[in-house]
Amino acid sequence: MYPNSLKELIDSLKYLPGVGEKTAERYAFSLINQDEEKVEVLSEAILKAKKDIKRCSICNGLTDKDKCDICTDKSRDNNVLCVVEDPKSVFIFEKLGAFKGLYHVLSGLISPLDGVSPNDIGLDKLIERIRKEKYKEIILAFKPSIEGETTSLYIKRVLDGLDINITKIASGIPMGADMEYIDTITLERALKDRKTVE
Amino acid sequence: MYPNSLKELIDSLKYLPGVGEKTAERYAFSLINQDEEKVEVLSEAILKAKKDIKRCSICNGLTDKDKCDICTDKSRDNNVLCVVEDPKSVFIFEKLGAFKGLYHVLSGLISPLDGVSPNDIGLDKLIERIRKEKYKEIILAFKPSIEGETTSLYIKRVLDGLDINITKIASGIPMGADMEYIDTITLERALKDRKTVE
Repeated sequence: MYPNSLKELIDSLKYLPGVGEKTAERYAFSLINQDEEKVEVLSEAILKAKKDIKRCSICNGLTDKDKCDICTDKSRDNNVLCVVEDPKSVFIFEKLGAFKGLYHVLSGLISPLDGVSPNDIGLDKLIERIRKEKYKEIILAFKPSIEGETTSLYIKRVLDGLDINITKIASGIPMGADMEYIDTITLERALKDRKTVE
Repeated sequence: MYPNSLKELIDSLKYLPGVGEKTAERYAFSLINQDEEKVEVLSEAILKAKKDIKRCSICNGLTDKDKCDICTDKSRDNNVLCVVEDPKSVFIFEKLGAFKGLYHVLSGLISPLDGVSPNDIGLDKLIERIRKEKYKEIILAFKPSIEGETTSLYIKRVLDGLDINITKIASGIPMGADMEYIDTITLERALKDRKTVE
């Protein structure tokens, strides 16, 4: 029903996450109406990013070089290593700007139910880096979940005996949230991790 | 903060309608993780659709030929012309499959407030086509709105005196809608256009 190249465009736009038929159609019609120049820029940017962007050989973060800008930045605090579950988390922390240490990016979290074991997520490389680099603190910044807990506990256990402070980011009720919409596990955790008011 | 080609990809994904920073980031990270082949298919499909897809010289609909498949389909009823406000509407009606006549695509609707006049939306070409082709019925299929009404009235007035039945698609309460969420104008219109139960 659609002309062929329009049908092909709609189909390939569905590769984007969460994009179904309707959204793909909307994008396709809009692209056809865009300036030729913009369309070429987008098409080219997709190819170029796929070609240029690779993993940093030290931290596994995304970079267009062999070693990423953070790993080679001498002004960063090399006593603290923040371990995250995906490359995007690095950029989220960097946008925040509050963390000045180094990162290590895992390929997800341990999940026995899904058959994901410690080596599948690159924990061997992390452990090796930690043993070599003598960090003072390892911050585990995973999303609060069974998988996050499992991965944290595994790392804690493997590094047992080394003189390193292993911490994890706080879990609890987010700012501005309505108490009535908080799930029970979060509330239970928030109660358990209560702090003295200072 | 992002490597350059990633930043450029995120920026150019924002050309897509309704896509802001967050969604563009999500799409970009996903594209980087896709198979190289899929990424190439998408990049190529964008260029190809922009290059191939043009307007049908008869109805203004989207096509990859000089005349679209509908205009050249001899089996269609050439007594009835359905006038729509954009190329996408044609595909919406075709998916439905209930209309077997021909189409004419305008470039939007008359909107004096936005400075859009009859000639801006290609009404001259439509009127010329109607005068030449001797249709028995013209169906106006615009979205219910001030602009849709204005455009309908304008077409009705220009064609006054010709022996053509000019109709418009019904406006009213959509199937499955909750009465309490229907706006007053729609409700008023539905009441005014009430039909005898048969």
